[in-house]
Amino acid sequence: MAEDKVFELGNDKRVTVREFKGRTLIDIRAFYEKDGKKLPGSKGISLTEAQFEELSEQVQSIQDAVLAM
Amino acid sequence: MAEDKVFELGNDKRVTVREFKGRTLIDIRAFYEKDGKKLPGSKGISLTEAQFEELSEQVQSIQDAVLAM
Repeated sequence: MAEDKVFELGNDKRVTVREFKGRTLIDIRAFYEKDGKKLPGSKGISLTEAQFEELSEQVQSIQDAVLAM
Repeated sequence: MAEDKVFELGNDKRVTVREFKGRTLIDIRAFYEKDGKKLPGSKGISLTEAQFEELSEQVQSIQDAVLAM
Protein backbone atom coordinates (compact mmCIF):
# COMPACT_ATOMS: atom_id res chain seq x y z
CA MET A 1 0.00 0.00 0.00
CA ALA A 2 1.27 3.45 -0.88
CA GLU A 3 2.20 5.81 1.94
CA ASP A 4 -0.02 8.75 2.84
CA LYS A 5 1.02 12.05 1.28
CA VAL A 6 0.47 15.21 3.30
CA PHE A 7 0.07 18.82 2.13
CA GLU A 8 -0.04 21.63 4.69
CA LEU A 9 -2.59 24.43 4.29
CA GLY A 10 -1.49 26.38 7.37
CA ASN A 11 -2.92 26.64 10.89
CA ASP A 12 -2.90 22.85 11.31
CA LYS A 13 -5.14 22.18 8.35
CA ARG A 14 -3.91 19.48 6.00
CA VAL A 15 -4.74 17.64 2.84
CA THR A 16 -3.89 13.95 3.11
CA VAL A 17 -3.94 11.65 0.09
CA ARG A 18 -4.39 8.06 1.16
CA GLU A 19 -5.72 4.68 0.26
CA PHE A 20 -8.79 3.42 2.06
CA LYS A 21 -10.42 0.12 1.16
CA GLY A 22 -8.77 0.10 -2.23
CA ARG A 23 -9.82 3.65 -3.12
CA THR A 24 -7.82 6.84 -3.05
CA LEU A 25 -9.26 9.52 -0.79
CA ILE A 26 -8.33 13.17 -0.51
CA ASP A 27 -8.97 14.21 3.07
CA ILE A 28 -9.07 17.92 3.98
CA ARG A 29 -8.96 18.19 7.76
CA ALA A 30 -8.01 20.23 10.83
CA PHE A 31 -5.50 18.61 13.19
CA TYR A 32 -4.86 19.32 16.84
CA GLU A 33 -1.92 18.66 19.12
CA LYS A 34 -2.04 16.22 22.03
CA ASP A 35 1.00 15.03 23.99
CA GLY A 36 3.24 16.43 21.28
CA LYS A 37 1.46 14.52 18.51
CA LYS A 38 -0.75 15.90 15.75
CA LEU A 39 -4.08 14.11 15.64
CA PRO A 40 -6.92 14.41 13.11
CA GLY A 41 -9.92 16.36 14.41
CA SER A 42 -13.61 16.02 13.60
CA LYS A 43 -13.62 19.05 11.29
CA GLY A 44 -12.88 17.79 7.84
CA ILE A 45 -14.15 16.01 4.78
CA SER A 46 -12.94 13.17 2.57
CA LEU A 47 -13.30 13.62 -1.16
CA THR A 48 -13.18 10.89 -3.77
CA GLU A 49 -10.88 11.28 -6.76
CA ALA A 50 -13.85 12.42 -8.87
CA GLN A 51 -14.91 15.02 -6.31
CA PHE A 52 -11.36 16.35 -5.98
CA GLU A 53 -11.18 16.55 -9.76
CA GLU A 54 -14.37 18.63 -9.72
CA LEU A 55 -12.81 20.87 -7.09
CA SER A 56 -9.61 21.20 -9.13
CA GLU A 57 -11.52 22.21 -12.22
CA GLN A 58 -13.44 24.90 -10.31
CA VAL A 59 -10.51 26.40 -8.36
CA GLN A 60 -10.29 29.41 -10.66
CA SER A 61 -14.04 30.06 -10.43
CA ILE A 62 -13.91 29.75 -6.64
CA GLN A 63 -10.99 32.20 -6.49
CA ASP A 64 -12.99 34.60 -8.66
CA ALA A 65 -15.96 34.25 -6.28
CA VAL A 66 -13.68 35.01 -3.31
CA LEU A 67 -12.38 38.14 -5.00
CA ALA A 68 -15.95 39.24 -5.82
CA MET A 69 -17.14 39.02 -2.18
CA MET B 1 -23.41 41.53 2.17
CA ALA B 2 -22.54 39.51 -0.92
CA GLU B 3 -24.59 36.41 -1.68
CA ASP B 4 -23.17 32.95 -1.10
CA LYS B 5 -21.70 31.29 -4.17
CA VAL B 6 -22.07 27.54 -4.50
CA PHE B 7 -19.95 25.05 -6.49
CA GLU B 8 -21.07 21.43 -6.77
CA LEU B 9 -18.51 18.64 -6.39
CA GLY B 10 -20.97 15.80 -6.94
CA ASN B 11 -22.74 13.41 -4.54
CA ASP B 12 -24.12 16.33 -2.49
CA LYS B 13 -20.72 17.76 -1.65
CA ARG B 14 -20.39 21.48 -2.19
CA VAL B 15 -17.98 24.36 -1.92
CA THR B 16 -19.69 27.49 -0.61
CA VAL B 17 -17.99 30.87 -0.67
CA ARG B 18 -19.51 33.17 1.91
CA GLU B 19 -18.97 36.02 4.26
CA PHE B 20 -18.86 35.32 7.96
CA LYS B 21 -18.11 38.04 10.51
CA GLY B 22 -16.53 40.19 7.86
CA ARG B 23 -14.26 37.46 6.52
CA THR B 24 -14.62 35.35 3.42
CA LEU B 25 -14.76 31.62 4.09
CA ILE B 26 -14.53 28.74 1.66
CA ASP B 27 -16.59 25.91 3.10
CA ILE B 28 -16.24 22.38 1.69
CA ARG B 29 -19.12 20.30 3.02
CA ALA B 30 -21.46 17.33 2.53
CA PHE B 31 -25.16 18.18 2.40
CA TYR B 32 -28.14 15.92 3.05
CA GLU B 33 -31.78 16.11 2.07
CA LYS B 34 -34.57 16.62 4.57
CA ASP B 35 -38.17 17.46 3.65
CA GLY B 36 -37.05 18.28 0.13
CA LYS B 37 -34.41 20.75 1.29
CA LYS B 38 -30.65 20.39 1.16
CA LEU B 39 -29.09 21.00 4.56
CA PRO B 40 -25.41 21.26 5.54
CA GLY B 41 -24.11 18.19 7.38
CA SER B 42 -21.42 17.88 10.02
CA LYS B 43 -18.82 16.54 7.58
CA GLY B 44 -16.97 19.52 6.22
CA ILE B 45 -14.37 22.17 6.84
CA SER B 46 -14.17 25.94 6.44
CA LEU B 47 -10.99 27.34 4.96
CA THR B 48 -9.80 30.93 5.17
CA GLU B 49 -8.79 32.72 2.01
CA ALA B 50 -5.11 32.05 2.83
CA GLN B 51 -5.75 28.34 3.38
CA PHE B 52 -7.71 28.04 0.16
CA GLU B 53 -4.89 29.83 -1.63
CA GLU B 54 -2.47 27.22 -0.22
CA LEU B 55 -4.79 24.48 -1.47
CA SER B 56 -5.04 26.10 -4.91
CA GLU B 57 -1.27 26.31 -5.22
CA GLN B 58 -0.90 22.62 -4.33
CA VAL B 59 -3.68 21.21 -6.52
CA GLN B 60 -1.24 19.94 -9.13
CA SER B 61 0.97 18.28 -6.49
CA ILE B 62 -2.09 16.67 -4.90
CA GLN B 63 -3.25 15.38 -8.30
CA ASP B 64 0.23 13.95 -8.85
CA ALA B 65 0.06 12.24 -5.44
CA VAL B 66 -3.34 10.74 -6.34
CA LEU B 67 -1.95 9.36 -9.60
CA ALA B 68 1.08 7.91 -7.77
CA MET B 69 -1.09 5.95 -5.26
